[in-house]
Amino acid sequence: MVKFKENGKKILLAHGSGGRLTHELIKDFVKRFQNPILAKLDDSAVLKVEGRLAFTTDSYVVDPIYFPGGDIGKLAVNGTINDLSMVGARPLYLSASAIIEEGFPIGDLERIVDSMERAARLAKVEIVAGDTKVVEKGGVDKIFINTSGIGVVESGVDISSGNGRVGDRIILSGTIGDHGIAILSARERFDFQTEVKSDSQPLNGIVLEILKVSKKIHVLRDPTRGGLATALNEIAQQSGVGIEIEEEKIPVKEGVRGVCEMLGFDPLYIANEGKLVAFVPEKDSMKVLNAMRKNRCGKNAQIIGSVVKGHKGKVVVRTGVGGERILDMLSGEQLPRIC
Amino acid sequence: MVKFKENGKKILLAHGSGGRLTHELIKDFVKRFQNPILAKLDDSAVLKVEGRLAFTTDSYVVDPIYFPGGDIGKLAVNGTINDLSMVGARPLYLSASAIIEEGFPIGDLERIVDSMERAARLAKVEIVAGDTKVVEKGGVDKIFINTSGIGVVESGVDISSGNGRVGDRIILSGTIGDHGIAILSARERFDFQTEVKSDSQPLNGIVLEILKVSKKIHVLRDPTRGGLATALNEIAQQSGVGIEIEEEKIPVKEGVRGVCEMLGFDPLYIANEGKLVAFVPEKDSMKVLNAMRKNRCGKNAQIIGSVVKGHKGKVVVRTGVGGERILDMLSGEQLPRIC
Repeated sequence: MVKFKENGKKILLAHGSGGRLTHELIKDFVKRFQNPILAKLDDSAVLKVEGRLAFTTDSYVVDPIYFPGGDIGKLAVNGTINDLSMVGARPLYLSASAIIEEGFPIGDLERIVDSMERAARLAKVEIVAGDTKVVEKGGVDKIFINTSGIGVVESGVDISSGNGRVGDRIILSGTIGDHGIAILSARERFDFQTEVKSDSQPLNGIVLEILKVSKKIHVLRDPTRGGLATALNEIAQQSGVGIEIEEEKIPVKEGVRGVCEMLGFDPLYIANEGKLVAFVPEKDSMKVLNAMRKNRCGKNAQIIGSVVKGHKGKVVVRTGVGGERILDMLSGEQLPRIC
Repeated sequence: MVKFKENGKKILLAHGSGGRLTHELIKDFVKRFQNPILAKLDDSAVLKVEGRLAFTTDSYVVDPIYFPGGDIGKLAVNGTINDLSMVGARPLYLSASAIIEEGFPIGDLERIVDSMERAARLAKVEIVAGDTKVVEKGGVDKIFINTSGIGVVESGVDISSGNGRVGDRIILSGTIGDHGIAILSARERFDFQTEVKSDSQPLNGIVLEILKVSKKIHVLRDPTRGGLATALNEIAQQSGVGIEIEEEKIPVKEGVRGVCEMLGFDPLYIANEGKLVAFVPEKDSMKVLNAMRKNRCGKNAQIIGSVVKGHKGKVVVRTGVGGERILDMLSGEQLPRIC
């Protein structure tokens, strides 16, 4: 690995001036990402892309910047890969823009850039455009990162939160709440140990696998901020359909359940960064479930419910003891700066 | 214009939770941008784009957020349009991501979003993807905005900072230093009046016009942070050529010159947000100059110098009195948070 020239030093305002230090810092980034497009240092990357294009953006302000299972850099790369994947796109190129606080250690910047490079390489995407800004001490909390991304959508694929249809089976790719609880445990002082790690991971691989077995996937969504409950509510509203899920089908790790019970949180509202829900016509649902389970990211996949005729725009949960309740969107704020 | 639902109130942490308030805020944005792609509220926009693609990103942290001639919203839209234009691309789609401080007035957010909508409409680009994050009070200074953008590059166009060739004429589209001095005047208390306004404007129109008269434009660059001096140094290094410019050919407004003289700044290092330099083979240079001057953004265009055989990687300025000096990159920091 190429070391940053000024590892050991701190970020100065001059690193954001556009002058010599900016230039040197950017050269360090370029060396790290080893990318001929980025190396041209033009105002835009020029790319060859064929077909329908997917385009997305997300800013990451997670606090703390390091947490069990990841850091802000890994989160920023995987998050944008996942947003592209959720319209069925194959992610190709990312941009990365960092807003850095004056005095931030350059060694930490290097660690985060390394983490981004590794995440991009694992997911087979390239970081082709970048930007850095420096803000005076106190004007920003350590570092924020924006990633935007583009990918291509194969013909025949039409996935949208507005495409849920009555009869669709709802498949969840794995356990919920891991990311939110990992962040919480890194932030608060607990009297006990939790081994919960963030599930931050790229979902482009699993999406590719399930699209191979069914082109009829209607909806894909990664339940990030607001958790599974909010994601399902958004889909119910955008598709104008009712949703029913069975609580006991939803996989939740023991560690996550324990922390939630102790603090009065519902895992259904806790953020995830490496899970998805798929809405699939019943006919294709077992094929998709099996394809998910074969993928490393979908070993614990479950059919958790279906799209129903009644209660349009609403989500109903059936509980183990035969009761049911309306599952609302998250209201208020549980955990600020989760991503 | 559609009013924001909570105009008059302030941003809460819950606006960033991903839950109900986030959802309502995002619906306000979507109404404002009146854009069917954005209205689908999917994790990514899906677009039809043909040809070679340009892709860029920039985060804006300008302080203050309102200044003579513009605001952070207009700057963010025009800045990314210009980065796309500088590889000869026709800008098509932008993303917008805002990081907002808890307590920020929703009325101000509305004003900034309005400004972004207007800037996008004037430049005929669409904002098709977005994101909002909220950070606790003190974790971010008011509001930062990231815009990323994509555009298409016509075949035959090959513009890069690495393409400067000996003999190229260097054409500057207008006066320099306006943006930097406007920001400074909005920030500091002066004992005198300055009427200098930011030159923030979209350059896609003028680039389209000059590409009509010459496909042989080698380099385009908008001299933002670090000013004209830094932009020319970057081109000299990336192209591996020497550059010579004549100081007296460079147009500088009286107001800019006055402030610079008083404060000891050199206009060559002051940021611009609506100017470009073009490197063009001598044969096509008059055609390009005339096309520039016909455009509203290029009325004061001038040939300011040329690419020479000697002093590779360096920029030399000839002064009015027959002297010459090496023009270096900006070192250190003059004006933090200029964009």
